[in-house]
Amino acid sequence: MAQAQHETGYQALATHFGPGYSAARAVRDQHCRGEAHLTPMPPDAVIFAKSTEDVVAAVKICAAHRIPIIAHGTGTSLEGHLNAVQGGVCIDLAGMNRILEVRPEDMDVRVEAGVTRKQLNMHLRDQGLFFPIDPGADASLGGMCATRASGTNAVRYGTMRDNVLNLTAVMADGTVVTTGRRARKSAAGYDLTRLLVGSEGTLGIITEATLRLHGIPETIASAVCAFDSLDGAVQTTMETIQSGIPIARIELLDPLTVKAVNRYSKLSLPETPHLFMEFHGSPAAVEEQSAVVGELAAANGGTGFDWATLEEERNRLWQARHDTYYATRGLAPEKVSFSTDICVPISRLADCIAQTHADIGELGLLAPIVGHVGDGNFHVIVLMDEADAEEVEKARIFKERLVARALAHDGTCTGEHGVGMGKMAHLEQELGAGVALMRSIKKALDPDNILNPGKIFALD
Amino acid sequence: MAQAQHETGYQALATHFGPGYSAARAVRDQHCRGEAHLTPMPPDAVIFAKSTEDVVAAVKICAAHRIPIIAHGTGTSLEGHLNAVQGGVCIDLAGMNRILEVRPEDMDVRVEAGVTRKQLNMHLRDQGLFFPIDPGADASLGGMCATRASGTNAVRYGTMRDNVLNLTAVMADGTVVTTGRRARKSAAGYDLTRLLVGSEGTLGIITEATLRLHGIPETIASAVCAFDSLDGAVQTTMETIQSGIPIARIELLDPLTVKAVNRYSKLSLPETPHLFMEFHGSPAAVEEQSAVVGELAAANGGTGFDWATLEEERNRLWQARHDTYYATRGLAPEKVSFSTDICVPISRLADCIAQTHADIGELGLLAPIVGHVGDGNFHVIVLMDEADAEEVEKARIFKERLVARALAHDGTCTGEHGVGMGKMAHLEQELGAGVALMRSIKKALDPDNILNPGKIFALD
Repeated sequence: MAQAQHETGYQALATHFGPGYSAARAVRDQHCRGEAHLTPMPPDAVIFAKSTEDVVAAVKICAAHRIPIIAHGTGTSLEGHLNAVQGGVCIDLAGMNRILEVRPEDMDVRVEAGVTRKQLNMHLRDQGLFFPIDPGADASLGGMCATRASGTNAVRYGTMRDNVLNLTAVMADGTVVTTGRRARKSAAGYDLTRLLVGSEGTLGIITEATLRLHGIPETIASAVCAFDSLDGAVQTTMETIQSGIPIARIELLDPLTVKAVNRYSKLSLPETPHLFMEFHGSPAAVEEQSAVVGELAAANGGTGFDWATLEEERNRLWQARHDTYYATRGLAPEKVSFSTDICVPISRLADCIAQTHADIGELGLLAPIVGHVGDGNFHVIVLMDEADAEEVEKARIFKERLVARALAHDGTCTGEHGVGMGKMAHLEQELGAGVALMRSIKKALDPDNILNPGKIFALD
Repeated sequence: MAQAQHETGYQALATHFGPGYSAARAVRDQHCRGEAHLTPMPPDAVIFAKSTEDVVAAVKICAAHRIPIIAHGTGTSLEGHLNAVQGGVCIDLAGMNRILEVRPEDMDVRVEAGVTRKQLNMHLRDQGLFFPIDPGADASLGGMCATRASGTNAVRYGTMRDNVLNLTAVMADGTVVTTGRRARKSAAGYDLTRLLVGSEGTLGIITEATLRLHGIPETIASAVCAFDSLDGAVQTTMETIQSGIPIARIELLDPLTVKAVNRYSKLSLPETPHLFMEFHGSPAAVEEQSAVVGELAAANGGTGFDWATLEEERNRLWQARHDTYYATRGLAPEKVSFSTDICVPISRLADCIAQTHADIGELGLLAPIVGHVGDGNFHVIVLMDEADAEEVEKARIFKERLVARALAHDGTCTGEHGVGMGKMAHLEQELGAGVALMRSIKKALDPDNILNPGKIFALD
């Protein structure tokens, strides 16, 4: 009966969307995986939306037939957000890629959800403005809103939480809501913008976003510094943050990551822990900041604090950083990988990374560490042989212990990847009664549980 | 019957709290007014809470008897947040004034809700840290969370939204929820912290907060600059923000405000539009920033860009700024005043202030303008004779037009005062379908509508 109800719904969607609807196996398979290491669960159909009105039409039909709906940007999520746990329809928003209005005088922009961050920055380039949030992948801005993305620049510019002025979203009943105006601040009622940022498609489908922009800094300088110990690199990071230096990026690569990056990106860094850094500001400010950080690094065993102010050289360096995910997979091409992340208060970072490193050694895993350490956030990319049950179990134990360690240090089970399917149990450990609150909100806004069901938390 | 049920509840509260419970008229009258110009509606009783456990006990008794609950910090709210619209109990949190844990190495602090911002900053002073959010009044930090307060420093340091790491709150059923950990960022589920920030006591009673701290800048310099026109002052502000200068404070005072401040604070500023500014940073950074702003001011008709780097002189200046609310009331001591605020995108500020100024003239009102113009946020303090029905009506029309103007400029009906009772109709104008969403959340988390009923929006 439920299935028959669904069938009628799919027919209605096919009729409404015509060539914008597909139930082809290949299309469905392309729309469920993301980059997570999880068994793919394809949707029953895919809709290619071109407008908010398309999304409204799709949601209304799905609501009438209780068909689950999963929003899809570029498919770069890492915790299984796209898996169709209960089947249903995937709404692909990649075709909603118009940059609607740039307002340089207010330093903001309105975009459709499918615009990617690189597309936006290319568009803004000649206006002296940029959008700083950079999770590595060329993700869609709607997806970045939905997962509360952050990345390398967050230490200076904040996360998506801090850089969204308002959102337009289609709610579970097809209502279109715009969450606010363009004023830089507002005390007008509940913060609906921040409620949708990080809601992972479970409360509404984000179709448009108004984002804060920043001026391209007058001077950008990068530095790479090798350390003789992980602790020296992390201490340098902690002291930089504690000194209040507005560093724009400060990224840790452990020796294994450096090895992988050398191979993949044809660099020749010494295979020791490294910090990749970037400074933004006036020439004087950049010089002042980098001098202080250079001294902190030297005092912590850092050597070869090397500069790259030329744009080409800088881009090469950061491209290598961004490619670490792919580079580390090259360390063992026969294995699969999963990337997990935690975030702790900065004073706990050294202990937390040392303990994590020791645990990797103890378990005998191949698992490079790389991170946005200025925020206390780091990733571990665990490489494992799926056919080796013992290694799979070790990887599971490692992840459990990693999260337990983050929580013991008053940190969070995920700094930026989100909960998805991968961290549902950990969210309960982290927030306890808070999860019940989330459930109440979900039930109030999506009573039939059609929006990305089976993610973040289980409903009773 | 409902009343009888209430009676039993009040008896239970009186028994539980003993001397911490009062139904005395004088005490009730002290706990309803805030600083809003609204008919005071006292609660039926006041409880003096000393701990989260006290709040839990009070909420559980009230929930069992459906008695409304209104949280009270220092009583400085401006939109009638404290009025007991449906009677009920006021929970006074001023006794919860312990600073629980300062962690300089993480630049954060955990406080009870009744700690005031001045108390906190006095406590932090010798650690080189400060909490920047400064709404003028020495408000409680819990109240500042609840109203999403901001003020003079927000242009650089953000609002309460940006400076709260987590909250502990007692929900409508007495459950205690802590909304997050201490990590600087997290992607772990819905943003419960931001949901409670700005919820005005309607979703939960905030009892503790973990706040971000900032390093006291190496150099602080203030400047005062007179302009021959409002437009020149506003243009200078817009150009400063558009240049990306990280100015720490930039405040506009119109001629009427300057006149009031001269009288009240014994200053002798020329009675023309003024900007009060502050720069934070290294000596070189402060010099660099202020030189640029000085040039922008000069090009816009600014004169006498005067410096005050001495702490005493600086404090005198900012005390005068903070006293504008009281100072302007001195312009017509026989009248009552109400303070209202709006916030618009920075590019609309000049037009919006010019139109507002013209409207004040056209209506013949006495209404000084003062504002946090770097955020596009300004206040109008309307002085009116309550016995003069025509003037009261003019004030009403003025406020309606002011909000309509803010919305027409893609701004918000309140930048920082909140909705309370005073802006409920305007919230509907601003957000439309978004208000229905807020209602759903409210009903889900407080189904009996006992938490500060009659605020932000009407339930059906």
